[in-house]
Amino acid sequence: MQPTHVTAATTSTTGSSSPTRILARDLVTTPPGERATLAGWIHRRRVLASVTFLVLRDRTGLAQVVVKEPGTLEQLAGLPEETVVEVTGTVSANASAPGGSELVEPTVTALTEPAVAPPAELWRPRFGAGLPTHLDHAAVTLRHPRHRAAWQLASASMRGFREALAALEFTEIATPKLVGTATESGANVFTVDYFGRTAYLAQSPQLYKQMLVGVFERVFEVGPVFRAEPHDTVRHLAQYTSLDAELGFIRDHRDVLAVLRAAIAGMVDAIGTYAGDAASLLGVELPRVPEEFPVIHFSDALAKVGADPDEPDLSPAHERALSEWARTAYGSDFLAVEGYPMRKRPFYTHPQRGDERWSNSFDLLFRGLELTTGGQRLHRPSDYVAAMARTGTDPSLIAGYLDAFAHGMPPHGGFAIGLERWVGRLTGAENIREVTLFPRDLHRLEP
Amino acid sequence: MQPTHVTAATTSTTGSSSPTRILARDLVTTPPGERATLAGWIHRRRVLASVTFLVLRDRTGLAQVVVKEPGTLEQLAGLPEETVVEVTGTVSANASAPGGSELVEPTVTALTEPAVAPPAELWRPRFGAGLPTHLDHAAVTLRHPRHRAAWQLASASMRGFREALAALEFTEIATPKLVGTATESGANVFTVDYFGRTAYLAQSPQLYKQMLVGVFERVFEVGPVFRAEPHDTVRHLAQYTSLDAELGFIRDHRDVLAVLRAAIAGMVDAIGTYAGDAASLLGVELPRVPEEFPVIHFSDALAKVGADPDEPDLSPAHERALSEWARTAYGSDFLAVEGYPMRKRPFYTHPQRGDERWSNSFDLLFRGLELTTGGQRLHRPSDYVAAMARTGTDPSLIAGYLDAFAHGMPPHGGFAIGLERWVGRLTGAENIREVTLFPRDLHRLEP
Repeated sequence: MQPTHVTAATTSTTGSSSPTRILARDLVTTPPGERATLAGWIHRRRVLASVTFLVLRDRTGLAQVVVKEPGTLEQLAGLPEETVVEVTGTVSANASAPGGSELVEPTVTALTEPAVAPPAELWRPRFGAGLPTHLDHAAVTLRHPRHRAAWQLASASMRGFREALAALEFTEIATPKLVGTATESGANVFTVDYFGRTAYLAQSPQLYKQMLVGVFERVFEVGPVFRAEPHDTVRHLAQYTSLDAELGFIRDHRDVLAVLRAAIAGMVDAIGTYAGDAASLLGVELPRVPEEFPVIHFSDALAKVGADPDEPDLSPAHERALSEWARTAYGSDFLAVEGYPMRKRPFYTHPQRGDERWSNSFDLLFRGLELTTGGQRLHRPSDYVAAMARTGTDPSLIAGYLDAFAHGMPPHGGFAIGLERWVGRLTGAENIREVTLFPRDLHRLEP
Repeated sequence: MQPTHVTAATTSTTGSSSPTRILARDLVTTPPGERATLAGWIHRRRVLASVTFLVLRDRTGLAQVVVKEPGTLEQLAGLPEETVVEVTGTVSANASAPGGSELVEPTVTALTEPAVAPPAELWRPRFGAGLPTHLDHAAVTLRHPRHRAAWQLASASMRGFREALAALEFTEIATPKLVGTATESGANVFTVDYFGRTAYLAQSPQLYKQMLVGVFERVFEVGPVFRAEPHDTVRHLAQYTSLDAELGFIRDHRDVLAVLRAAIAGMVDAIGTYAGDAASLLGVELPRVPEEFPVIHFSDALAKVGADPDEPDLSPAHERALSEWARTAYGSDFLAVEGYPMRKRPFYTHPQRGDERWSNSFDLLFRGLELTTGGQRLHRPSDYVAAMARTGTDPSLIAGYLDAFAHGMPPHGGFAIGLERWVGRLTGAENIREVTLFPRDLHRLEP
């Protein structure tokens, strides 16, 4: 592990006198009696009368090292938890060790200076400090296996989302996060000093992904979106990761729902494949994704929960009740509510054919919470002219966007999934900050 | 293609009276004599005396439709290029048609209103207008097959980057783009009004990816980075897509170079697999990625180009000359230059073992241009204390970052590849804006 002396040379040969590192998971398949080298963080030192168990943590898990030698015991006393070390020892079978193998007769080399004690003991099964401590010291506390596991669900979900959409011939896009107008919603937008002008941080890639349907037919993006959310809630962040998709040549929003289903199935499968251990550690019960999501119309949903038929939206209590109903009636953790009133949806929303009070848009509820909003968008230029007039939007502010429709756009629609909200719902996190690497909110801009 | 009437119903059945769409590429495998339906944009109408050839464009390419029927000819006269249509006709073999098959006896249904003429004819093999016209009307002009193809190289490259790193057990991360301090460089940073405080747009995920090595050992991120670049050049953008990676338990920067090689090999392979047609259309010669990149030390590089040995950096002319040398000496489009002087590198740079004038950092040159910067970082807390003092950086500004080192970090390093620069180099674009979907620069914030 010591850096070799790199001489000023035009050759590309590297050399190292260090033994080859194996990972904690490889210990069990290494023949007993062989010498092997692990490297990682000192997760825990368990000091008994005549022996110290050194538990080493690397990206694959934990490994046990048995230390009996007086010199090494003395050395370990000066290497606190979280110190990074390399350990070479003899592999020994031990049924009571994690994985059934351990290292004995070790030599230990510190790869950095002795570590300062973390703000909470990371080796305890449950993180022992509160959320503020975790967030203030995230660079260290994220190492706790449960925090780490939550993000592994997120990481696998992104991978599954992309793989599912790539298989359906979606093209990945990268859209501007600095935009000249804040037309999409107007509220809760961050302003940026852009070379002396005012720019805004994009609240979503909505307008861009629509324009790019005109180029690639089917597009997706996984990227940051920004909301200057002025309320301090457990559900909202100033920056979160949005999984966006948009596709053309649809019949209506039901075609969008079918793609959303494929994306979520891909996410669930990827967690099983790439983050199964993390899901187990957190006790996550992965949802079964039905072949088709059950769907209820907004007006029927209001009736089912006994709400006033003129209500413009579903309350959190309504969403929970509807989810409960879907679980009972369909055995489904998912329920799509379609047909939300046009008056509550953005200007680009496509109305329901035959009854323009309602829209071809939907929310997807997952275990009681809204996970996704999506639907069919307008695609005829004259419909945009009318929508601009109806909502009082100045068309000159989004001329580049309206260009796409004037020059020919197919019927299209899409959706967006909030990554952190998805993971939070899977793990049952009480606060979305628990499943975000370095959250940003009204009060927090550090670390 | 007509939206079905969606009734307020709890069933999830959708119905459509439209025939099933096939794609342009499927025409050749559809038996002659069968009726088939295509949908897409009218790419071109070629009007001859007794027949009009309608060329239809969809995400898979072009298809030819032969129109002889007077009613349909009259209809087509009112459907300009870029109008979105559905065409049902009889498949007919014709050796002179693209792909060897065409549609005859068609019925045409417009899926939107007749399109306004684009600012340049998109059916011409070369885009006929200048870059400003392209950028001003990107929502439409990106549809030109050459513009579209350039982004397909980008899209495939991102996929290849991720697949290569996932195979090496890297975890995907998502880091804050809103940060409280601008310590990494200080200059060229955008300021944001963050709930009444000043925040900055992240110029790179550098500090975060390092901290997360402490959590996951190996991490990558594909995301936007922001530079308030005050100069109007053909190489710089205010926002670009950075392909970042960072890994722990390295011996030195040569281990980082090996991962960079794997990432670039993955990108090249993915272009071949997923965007081969796009590469052919653009005449892109994909580079051969050698098993190891040839490496030259910075001091040797200066000598080789006849520069003053006290030069702190390589000029563009030097980079071109060195690339030419690598091509001749090694048959390689790539050359790594290692050992850049410490005084020109950021505070977290690890010095060269044995001679601290030089660093364990590198630039990777690709066909005459710097593509990537990377290297080994400091990992001992005392080294950071010294580096802060040496560079006059206030440690309290990045306390959360320094936390990671105090609590134990392994030897580590990483790199970043600019996606647009990579694609620009592949295609030989004169201006990086040619290969960016909606570029942002000193003057441009629209569309």
